[in-house]
Order: sequence, then structure tokens, then C-alpha cells
Amino acid sequence: MTSKKLGKQTIKLLSPPSIIATASIVGPKEGKGPLHEYFHEILKDDLYGENSWEKAESKMVKEVVKTAVMDARLKLEDIDYLFAGDLLNQLMASSLAARDLQIPYYGLFGACSTMAEGLSLAAIMIDGGYGDYAIASTSSHFSTAERQFRFPLELGNQRPLTSQWTVTGAGAAIVAVNKREGPYITYITTGKVIDYGIADANNMGAAMAPAAVDTIIAHFKDTGLSTDYYDLVVTGDLGVIGRDIAEDLLKKEGINIKCLIDCGEEIFDHKTQDTHSGGSGCGCSAVVFCGYLYKKLRSKEFNRILFISTGALLSPTSVQQGESIPSIAHAVSIEASLNVVGRCN
Amino acid sequence: MTSKKLGKQTIKLLSPPSIIATASIVGPKEGKGPLHEYFHEILKDDLYGENSWEKAESKMVKEVVKTAVMDARLKLEDIDYLFAGDLLNQLMASSLAARDLQIPYYGLFGACSTMAEGLSLAAIMIDGGYGDYAIASTSSHFSTAERQFRFPLELGNQRPLTSQWTVTGAGAAIVAVNKREGPYITYITTGKVIDYGIADANNMGAAMAPAAVDTIIAHFKDTGLSTDYYDLVVTGDLGVIGRDIAEDLLKKEGINIKCLIDCGEEIFDHKTQDTHSGGSGCGCSAVVFCGYLYKKLRSKEFNRILFISTGALLSPTSVQQGESIPSIAHAVSIEASLNVVGRCN
Repeated sequence: MTSKKLGKQTIKLLSPPSIIATASIVGPKEGKGPLHEYFHEILKDDLYGENSWEKAESKMVKEVVKTAVMDARLKLEDIDYLFAGDLLNQLMASSLAARDLQIPYYGLFGACSTMAEGLSLAAIMIDGGYGDYAIASTSSHFSTAERQFRFPLELGNQRPLTSQWTVTGAGAAIVAVNKREGPYITYITTGKVIDYGIADANNMGAAMAPAAVDTIIAHFKDTGLSTDYYDLVVTGDLGVIGRDIAEDLLKKEGINIKCLIDCGEEIFDHKTQDTHSGGSGCGCSAVVFCGYLYKKLRSKEFNRILFISTGALLSPTSVQQGESIPSIAHAVSIEASLNVVGRCN
Repeated sequence: MTSKKLGKQTIKLLSPPSIIATASIVGPKEGKGPLHEYFHEILKDDLYGENSWEKAESKMVKEVVKTAVMDARLKLEDIDYLFAGDLLNQLMASSLAARDLQIPYYGLFGACSTMAEGLSLAAIMIDGGYGDYAIASTSSHFSTAERQFRFPLELGNQRPLTSQWTVTGAGAAIVAVNKREGPYITYITTGKVIDYGIADANNMGAAMAPAAVDTIIAHFKDTGLSTDYYDLVVTGDLGVIGRDIAEDLLKKEGINIKCLIDCGEEIFDHKTQDTHSGGSGCGCSAVVFCGYLYKKLRSKEFNRILFISTGALLSPTSVQQGESIPSIAHAVSIEASLNVVGRCN
């Protein structure tokens, strides 16, 4: 037995696997944001040499996987599993990328929670001894998401202030048997679908905040850890409004987190970049993790983070049929070193 | 270590988990097919008391999960993980069901390969000691799939003879720690995305057959098992045309399988039910497995089956952009008893 089930939703990995390499690609707008120096590649053109945005998104997935594999000095044939998904119907970006990559593939749909969903399952595959290397990858693209979920860009619709800007970007992380070098995945908390009744596709932060809070509460309850255990609790992508709501809901539950940040809030300068409530999309928490957070964990500027990707399972069909937006959040604990006291302690 | 990686794509589960209960619901048309006596529930009306087909599909998912849990004398709170997915954009059926069921949830998208994808991951969660009970569930609905992938039913389009009839149905299976009573999940072969260039949304069998063949070859190559090891090799849902193609492709590779059947071919009487090439949809292999195959394994009429759900990752957007249909197949070995010689031996 390599793991231990704690409480209802959490696993403690007793032989924590390592994240041995990551890669991230972002679009031009993200490349002008505050985290620009941490991304592996910044595109000059969000068509990325393709003839559709969807194909550009798929190419990003393919390229981040290849880059991470090369960076780990591996070959694609060495990878046992690819866990990937995206926002496009039928996971068009991931499906086409998986066709070219030829890695055994599990398609996931968790909307913007996909990075943490993929990291969870990749870690379990490695911790359980089912392979040597597993990749978690996901992507989103502003122009593919807007036309699928909201309006064709050509209409020039005005965006309300509660709206978030879907990140153009993709991230990939390789999880491997503990190589005696971190960062390590130590706990996994699997989310439940939570729905407080928000039905506005332009206020996803409000829809997702209760799911993030539910998973955060479950994590601390199941593990018995103090909130000080982590340097950072990182949600993604609640945006400015959603993070505020999450903080309020956590306080009501008596949970006070010193360092709660959100990938959607960090990725853009929302005062100058006209992104209103911040970034969103599967790619948002993916590139913030695979770029910024991973590099800070490698350099040990961060020792322990709780990474919670949040997904609004927004279906245009279900909204048309009068349904609200079900949301989910999965949490993964990532620690730079094992047995080191966190910064907040 | 509870498992052993064999070759590139296969895992042998050294403490094979049991499938302790299943449930299946089908629509009226499936209830008139040759397997009608094996299903747990046959609907009289495919709206199932709801005001949309999508909500009816979601209700089927919820009901099969509840029925399987009740049948196993468990409560919903006892279930550690729900692996579910469907054909609807953003997994509308599974997402809304997971909201009501409140089981920690991993959303999957493998199109019609979802039943085997879910069974694989559920078995790994249990084999690896990450929980006591995991459910794999999936669904499809003729009327939701037709309007999403092809044409509104109201148009009354004529269906070409290569087309398949999306099954209205849902299945759920509970995987648990080896209870000394089968059937057991013994091997898992994870598929790769295969694409031979078929771009016709009305000939999914031809698109999926090469993926099924690729996974079957990988399974026998990785395990070293003889094809006689299994009583039945069951693909789903290639339909009549796809199964013929698969058989041809296997023969070209020198693989001769005595008992190769296909869920899409079995579920309808294609001569009298006007279903052309047979059944399809995530629900097809789900209800054939959770109904017919599971009952035959329990009664030990079948001893060993290789169950291969096949998925066409058909995206209307990618087809409009000139892409062919990427496909995938995952295989799961299911054995009624451990260490019993199969019927074909």
C-alpha cells in the first residue's frame, strides 16, 4: 500500500511522486501580463501558424507536451499515460494532440479544473506503480472559448465587468517516480460538484467560488493540517470577484488563510489589461502552475502550496434549459522538499 | 506494489478488484431488442418524466448509480469516486447527475469508449488502495446525440446505411476491493488515439475499427496471452460494418479471434429494428456490459471476457475544419473467477 485515504475526499501519497518537468505556452496578451517572465514560450500570434484557433490550441498542447518531455531528457515513447482535456466540445484540442503524440491517453473533462484533475490522476498512476511517467496537460484559447460558450467575436459584444478573460495558453507537467528531487505531490483532494444557483455565463467566479471553498474545507478537515501548513493556497481561476467571494465564504466557516491567491487574478494586470474580473480557462491555472508556481517551487522560494483548479461545468444547452452552472474544484498539495517547515510556520 | 506494468500499454492487477454490482436503464427501442431481458429497467418514454432529452439522460445516470449502490447494499456516502462522462457537450448528463449524487467526481471524455475508460480508472483507484468503492458510469440518448452531432430530429433526415443508432441508455458498475466473489478486473490496456482518415460522421464504425484493432493487438502483445484465453472478445460499438472491418484488420495482422462480438451489433435486431449498422453511443457498451455481460459473468456462463469500448472522438467543429475522426479504444479484462480455465481453452 503506497497511499492512505484520509477522511472522505483526500489521499495522502506515502511515496510522493515528483513533478520532474513542466512546459507552458501563452498567447501575446498573457505574455504582456505580470507573470510573463515565467512562461516557457510566448506566442506572437494566437493562430500559431494554423488556419483556425482550434487547431492553434491543439498545437499548443502538442508543443507543451513535447517541450516538457525534451526538458526531462525523455522521449515520447517513455511516457506511459497522457491525461488531458480542454474546453472545446469533444476535447478537440487534446484529442488531435493525442493523435499525434501517440501516448496512451485518458481524456478528461473538468473544465478549468482540468490541470488539478490531470495532476491528481497522473500522480495516482505513478504512486500506485502503474507506470514510470505520466503527463497532465490542458489548454484554453480566448477565441475558441468565446465563440463556443458566448458570442462570435465578430459581433463585438460588450463584456460585463464580472466577466473573465479566457487565457490563451497550455501547460504540461510530467509526474514520475520520486527522483529524490522535488517538487512532490503529497496530497490529493477530489472535488464534488457544487452548485449555488448562479446561471450567468459572464460571472463564472461566483459560480466556482463555492466549489473551491468546499474542496478547501474538505482538504483541511480530512488531513487535519493547519492552514499555516502552506505558503500559498492557490485557487484558479476564480478571478477577482470569485476570490473575494471564496475568502468571505471561508471566513464564515472560520477558516482564515493568510496567503490565498488566484491564478485568474495573477495572470493579468486587471487594471491595465482590460480583463475585468481576471483570467479563466483550463489554460489559466495550467500556465500559472507550469510556469510561475513550478519555477518558484524548484527554486524553493515556495515550499508548500495547495493548488486548487476550479471548473465551471458551463453548458450552453443546460443554461438554455434553465439550469444553473455546476462547478467543481480539485486540490493537489505540492511540496518543494519533504519534511521542510513551510514559510508561513 | 499491487500491479505490474506489462509492455507499453497494459497493467496486470495483482489483487484484482471485484465488480460487486451493476445497473442499466434503456429506452423503449432498446427494450425491444434481443437483449431486453438482461436490462434492469426499460423506459416506456424516453423523456423519463423530464422536460428535455438531455435532462432525461442525466436522470438515467443518476438512477443507475443509485440502483447499483442500493443493490450493493451501500449508501451514496460510501462511494469514494465517481468516474463518469457522456457524449453531451461539457458532459451535461454526468455533470448534473454528479451534482445531485455528491460523490467525489472525475469527469471523463472518451466518447463511446467511456465505459472502459471509467472501469479502468475505477479499478486502478481500488487496486491501488485509494478507496473502497469506485463507480464507473456513462450514458447516451438517441435524441440528444442526433441533434448535437448530426441534424435536428425534426428535419427527418434520411440515415445512410452505414449509420449507427445511438443507444438510449445508461450503465453503472461498482468496483470494490476483492470480495472473494467475481467478476474481477484483471488487466487494463490503455488505448492510443488512432485515425485512419475517415471523416464521415455517418460511418463511425469504420473510424473506430482501427482503434479497436490497435488496442486488441497491444493487449495480446503486452500480456503474451493467447486469443483463446477469452471466451469472448467484445468490442463496442463498432456496429456490423465496423466489426467486419476490425475482423479483417485483425486477420491481416495474423490474429484470429474465435468469439468476437460487438455491443453495437448485439443490442438491436438490425434486420427488423431499422438501425442499419447497429447501436452506438456511450450507453451502448455500458448497458450491454452492465446488463447482459455482467449477468453472464455472474452466472459463470462466461468465464473471461476482454471488453473493449471504442470511441469516435467526433467533433462537428473539427469535421467542419477538414479533420478526420480520431478514435480510441480501451480494453479491460474481466474474469468470473480467478484461476479458472476459459471456455475456449
